[in-house]
Amino acid sequence: MPVTIFERVRDSFTQQQFMATLGASLSAVKSGAVEIVVPFRADLTQQNGFVHAGVITSILDSACGYAALSVAPESVNVLSVEFKVNLLSPAVGERFVARVQVKRAGRTITVCAADAFAINGTEEKLVATMLATIITTNAIPSRDLSS
Amino acid sequence: MPVTIFERVRDSFTQQQFMATLGASLSAVKSGAVEIVVPFRADLTQQNGFVHAGVITSILDSACGYAALSVAPESVNVLSVEFKVNLLSPAVGERFVARVQVKRAGRTITVCAADAFAINGTEEKLVATMLATIITTNAIPSRDLSS
Amino acid sequence: MPVTIFERVRDSFTQQQFMATLGASLSAVKSGAVEIVVPFRADLTQQNGFVHAGVITSILDSACGYAALSVAPESVNVLSVEFKVNLLSPAVGERFVARVQVKRAGRTITVCAADAFAINGTEEKLVATMLATIITTNAIPSRDLSS
Amino acid sequence: MPVTIFERVRDSFTQQQFMATLGASLSAVKSGAVEIVVPFRADLTQQNGFVHAGVITSILDSACGYAALSVAPESVNVLSVEFKVNLLSPAVGERFVARVQVKRAGRTITVCAADAFAINGTEEKLVATMLATIITTNAIPSRDLSS
Repeated sequence: MPVTIFERVRDSFTQQQFMATLGASLSAVKSGAVEIVVPFRADLTQQNGFVHAGVITSILDSACGYAALSVAPESVNVLSVEFKVNLLSPAVGERFVARVQVKRAGRTITVCAADAFAINGTEEKLVATMLATIITTNAIPSRDLSS
Repeated sequence: MPVTIFERVRDSFTQQQFMATLGASLSAVKSGAVEIVVPFRADLTQQNGFVHAGVITSILDSACGYAALSVAPESVNVLSVEFKVNLLSPAVGERFVARVQVKRAGRTITVCAADAFAINGTEEKLVATMLATIITTNAIPSRDLSS
Repeated sequence: MPVTIFERVRDSFTQQQFMATLGASLSAVKSGAVEIVVPFRADLTQQNGFVHAGVITSILDSACGYAALSVAPESVNVLSVEFKVNLLSPAVGERFVARVQVKRAGRTITVCAADAFAINGTEEKLVATMLATIITTNAIPSRDLSS
Repeated sequence: MPVTIFERVRDSFTQQQFMATLGASLSAVKSGAVEIVVPFRADLTQQNGFVHAGVITSILDSACGYAALSVAPESVNVLSVEFKVNLLSPAVGERFVARVQVKRAGRTITVCAADAFAINGTEEKLVATMLATIITTNAIPSRDLSS
């Protein structure tokens, strides 16, 4: 029975114990478009009570990896090579969502642009943006996403 | 009584609740040189059992911010503007340490290069490297380090 | 007589001798949106006959600086702090255009995303993408754009 | 007759017409360490008379590519995937030199850190720093270095 993109991404996400530690969940999975959301929690903050840049980066990175995976052939896995993050505003909000756009899906290299938004009620504010490079690899169970 | 660099960094670090969530601690603080260490824990991993890139990025980011703070005038605070991380090897080890070098400390902008190493017994392996831009701001309690 | 954004950008661009060396010209200037175009020339190539990444980066960088300038107060100048470029495809074409989107215009820091396209006849192909950090400074004639 | 690293790098460099346009030359080639130098010329400047960030980036990028090539197997070529540059000081000087350190040479991905210095008489000043990702490819004549 073929595995759908959604199942493939969800199964891998479920195995990312750090996402559970952050309280993060997959909120959307389509071909080339993945969303991950994390609610505010005091134990995710830095010294001013804002959510730490590392938390925002973590969901941006995982979202980029899964967006790349969602457009890759089924036998292939993905690995984060590098990313750059600009922190645009303090991460203040009820929850935070990372949304990805695949800029270019290549045979070996996939490049993703992702934005993170703080959500308060019905308002969204851009708090960070990522540009990430992901490499596709043959399916090697021990290295199928960034470490 | 003047506050030492060590006290200033330690006090801010203690308020970063996310560092406690990760189990991270300050292992060295000197002028222009800060080290943060995080022991391996299963709940910090991605789907292959490696420590998540977001964890490594979190300690690199905090270390860069504090290294910038350690060379800034006392009345000044710091804020991460952006960083780039290259993931060089899977983060496998007993613990992980982030070490920073201030490349240039300017009046407004400080640039830091930081490396993260996996430690196994007495061996260290480079697993990631960061190049980060930090801005110094007048002391505004609500924005004194990256969010 | 007030100076328009267009005049301000054009006057500075004209003084960038390196743009003339590359054969680059301003092809569009609006608030928050600047385009720079450079035609193919053999003396801009690397060893395979593609236009060198440095040429593409040069027009992306200048375009980002001018986009930031176009949304800044009149008394302010801008300076490139840093940028990241992903090279997505070989730069093969009749001419190349850099197009910028201001992601966030802050009081001190402006962040721009820019894409470079290769143009062949009526076709455009994305060849590179930049994420750049620009700092606004008080008008200091000797440092008003990246060096 | 085997080709030395020096010959391999020099032959490719000679074919980079853009390096000649800039007046750049190879000043050192060893395994894992390449230097490229460019003398000041007025037609390389931006509007304040400093050398344009794009010029400095061009020699940093070529130097990173050749440093990666210098540690790669002979049958392999290299291609710039992406780079980040921090501009640390205005590029003012008689000449500018890019110096590279290979951070990690992998089977597929090589990561280089490079610094650019302005030279005035016997003094050197750090003006920019690059962190770059290079991919090794099988020898395909048409794509053997960044475009």
